[in-house]
Amino acid sequence: MAKRRLVVIGGDAAGMSAAAQARRRDAELEITVFERTPYVSYASCGIPYYLAGLVESKTELIARTPEEFEKQGIQVRASHEVTAIDLEEMTVSYRRLQDGQTTDEGRWPFDVLVIATGSRPVVPNIPGVNATGVFSVGNLYEGEMIARYVVSEHPRRAVVVGTGYVGLEMTEALVRRGLEVTLVGRSQQVMSTLDPEIAVKVTEAVRNLGARVVLGEHLQGLEVDSSGRVREVVTSNSRLPADMVVLGLGVRPNSDLAKAAGLRLGVRESIAVDPYMRTEFENVWAAGDCIQLHHIVTGRPTWGSVATAANKTGRIAGRNLTGDHVTFPGILGTAVTKVGEVEVARTGLNAREAEEAGFRWRAVQVDSLTQSRYYPGTASLTLRLLAEEGSGRLLGAQIVGGQGAAKRIDTVVVALQAGLSVHEVEDLDLSYAPPFAPVWEAVILAARQLAEGA
Amino acid sequence: MAKRRLVVIGGDAAGMSAAAQARRRDAELEITVFERTPYVSYASCGIPYYLAGLVESKTELIARTPEEFEKQGIQVRASHEVTAIDLEEMTVSYRRLQDGQTTDEGRWPFDVLVIATGSRPVVPNIPGVNATGVFSVGNLYEGEMIARYVVSEHPRRAVVVGTGYVGLEMTEALVRRGLEVTLVGRSQQVMSTLDPEIAVKVTEAVRNLGARVVLGEHLQGLEVDSSGRVREVVTSNSRLPADMVVLGLGVRPNSDLAKAAGLRLGVRESIAVDPYMRTEFENVWAAGDCIQLHHIVTGRPTWGSVATAANKTGRIAGRNLTGDHVTFPGILGTAVTKVGEVEVARTGLNAREAEEAGFRWRAVQVDSLTQSRYYPGTASLTLRLLAEEGSGRLLGAQIVGGQGAAKRIDTVVVALQAGLSVHEVEDLDLSYAPPFAPVWEAVILAARQLAEGA
Repeated sequence: MAKRRLVVIGGDAAGMSAAAQARRRDAELEITVFERTPYVSYASCGIPYYLAGLVESKTELIARTPEEFEKQGIQVRASHEVTAIDLEEMTVSYRRLQDGQTTDEGRWPFDVLVIATGSRPVVPNIPGVNATGVFSVGNLYEGEMIARYVVSEHPRRAVVVGTGYVGLEMTEALVRRGLEVTLVGRSQQVMSTLDPEIAVKVTEAVRNLGARVVLGEHLQGLEVDSSGRVREVVTSNSRLPADMVVLGLGVRPNSDLAKAAGLRLGVRESIAVDPYMRTEFENVWAAGDCIQLHHIVTGRPTWGSVATAANKTGRIAGRNLTGDHVTFPGILGTAVTKVGEVEVARTGLNAREAEEAGFRWRAVQVDSLTQSRYYPGTASLTLRLLAEEGSGRLLGAQIVGGQGAAKRIDTVVVALQAGLSVHEVEDLDLSYAPPFAPVWEAVILAARQLAEGA
Repeated sequence: MAKRRLVVIGGDAAGMSAAAQARRRDAELEITVFERTPYVSYASCGIPYYLAGLVESKTELIARTPEEFEKQGIQVRASHEVTAIDLEEMTVSYRRLQDGQTTDEGRWPFDVLVIATGSRPVVPNIPGVNATGVFSVGNLYEGEMIARYVVSEHPRRAVVVGTGYVGLEMTEALVRRGLEVTLVGRSQQVMSTLDPEIAVKVTEAVRNLGARVVLGEHLQGLEVDSSGRVREVVTSNSRLPADMVVLGLGVRPNSDLAKAAGLRLGVRESIAVDPYMRTEFENVWAAGDCIQLHHIVTGRPTWGSVATAANKTGRIAGRNLTGDHVTFPGILGTAVTKVGEVEVARTGLNAREAEEAGFRWRAVQVDSLTQSRYYPGTASLTLRLLAEEGSGRLLGAQIVGGQGAAKRIDTVVVALQAGLSVHEVEDLDLSYAPPFAPVWEAVILAARQLAEGA
């Protein structure tokens, strides 16, 4: 009997997790992974740190090389783009790309398919967006292009457009590289996933890096010089000189192949899957940034590019396609980042999201410390906690503060996932010793204030 | 009508929390706090850092002075020892101590009483235990005595007896003060609250401080020179020269007054209270280190000296004696400390405790990192996770590792308090970004191994 053939489209963490789990559980399966870029199994979250020079070589970002996968019997076809999925014939069409040229193409049959096509940066339809010196950053390959440009072209002034995590991290990376950086955002605050009361502290942190921050301005176009190189960013209100531009306008699910194949799409055209990561087709699974996820607090479908969820759903797809029955409960929208020495974290719903989800919510904000007041090196920490009016059910939290502040969000993560109320949070036996915390953790003070209706 | 009179015995965090809450909720109450030492409202957990020279002045350890309490209308009688409680007459007997002399004594009436007598160090009944240079450390006053002795007597060699938190913290404090320190423990491991597999890493950390560690030796006596000063520690197997000795043999509930007054005692003679912090007498409440607590995992009564629980139960007593109805759910035995740069944390049950409580348990131990592998400064982290066989219910965890390791115990704290199983922990949407965590947090890897029965 012929071997069962698994094809995985996409060699990022989700795709490689699926392949690795499938291999682990089924030694007979013939596994082929198609990856558009030259790299598989890389840590895309590490790209800004690579650009900043904190990570010396891009090879450090690669968890495992194609050769290592080959040894496990996973065939990796890097620089191979899948151009179509035929669900009737059960084949994928692919082409091999070398220096932008197609050097090979064909069809590849599958019995089981995993779609792990990830996400891709949103690129606005404006003049000059394809000019030299304009970058968006979605994968290691693009990260490498930016690093090369900085080294070879010595840009002096950079404009980063977009104030999400990628925009902030790229701003810091380029400041560290010695560039004069302006961060531009459309909203009146940075990071729309935070409430304005917390975001304002993050803006301050970006300014303290030495970057200029321009808020409330809409990107309208990019001026290009005669050699085709970007020279100015035009917004609704300013003209910002720029030797390079990084677009951090968010990402969206890379679901074109799935859509063309006729698969059902959901929120923001992400691929609809059941909790087992199966699409509506028996032998077609999807995982990673391209799929729709369940939001644990709202109970509604959602979409987000979440590295941990990509890993988890890839693993689940790989297990289930080999006969297991594990499910994924969904996400909370947890995220964490760092701006200079300032740590930022969030989970669950912010005020706008709570409103949109129809919750009657209340919020308190507590200023506290990361260690005991008298312990040397203690840093400030501000926690904002949201709960449902009446029931006291926890809805979300945001933290901004010094070293040790951000990881405290995990306390709220577990509380949200367990469905705890502020009354239960108030009594948590959280760890305390002077080098680690004040006697009353901020989350306990905040929960207490919400419980008392203060 | 005469004012209702509240007497609080003990001016530590529990007593002062009770007094402050009562004042906040009832402006008419006449409140008097009797405190044996000269200090109230101090952070006893800060004493080792004060001794180490990390906290410059002992006044930094004092959250609020008697004068500040007086302004709130809380009468503070520092250096006043309560010698008896008369529950029929509803009075306490007290005496004022100055330089060891009684300068005043009398009786004080109450309508409502809060007993917050705390804990006191266990002092063994061995020869030489009262010699000059022999200390135990239970309160700020005793901490100050040790600091003065180090400054005035220039001891060169110290022996610390007892390998719990206090013993370890005192060892480090004295090493930092430039002393040659030997840490002696009766058990074959340090910190009996940890499983041996984790404790061994803590022992290594103590040795890396430059201290000598002697395990498996029982304290038999202290040799004293002709001037009444300690000169040698005699154990079952060694004679250890010592210019000073610190006894860190644990603490026990300071319940003598309650016992003499006829109140019901529980585990280790701690004062039995209901979840509202009330004793079996209508108007007699107790809070802090002197009371029996409920263990959330075993569901059984327990006792421990826990700073956060002392604060919480004091607050609850103060609220309830003024008409509120709040309860305290109990503790998990969470604790955290630092040995040099090594962080140590634990919560819930260790293997011995799980065994004693009758659980069929399993444990896994995972070596991981505090940050992404490629992020500069990432530190090692070892997590040991215990769960009930079959149900997968989480029972406890222990962590040892570099900076950022210990506070991760709080994730397990919330999971334990919410009664989560390893299956639920596996899917937690914990925060991730390269400066803060690897993609797979250790607790998720450990939960997964337990879930898979690996």
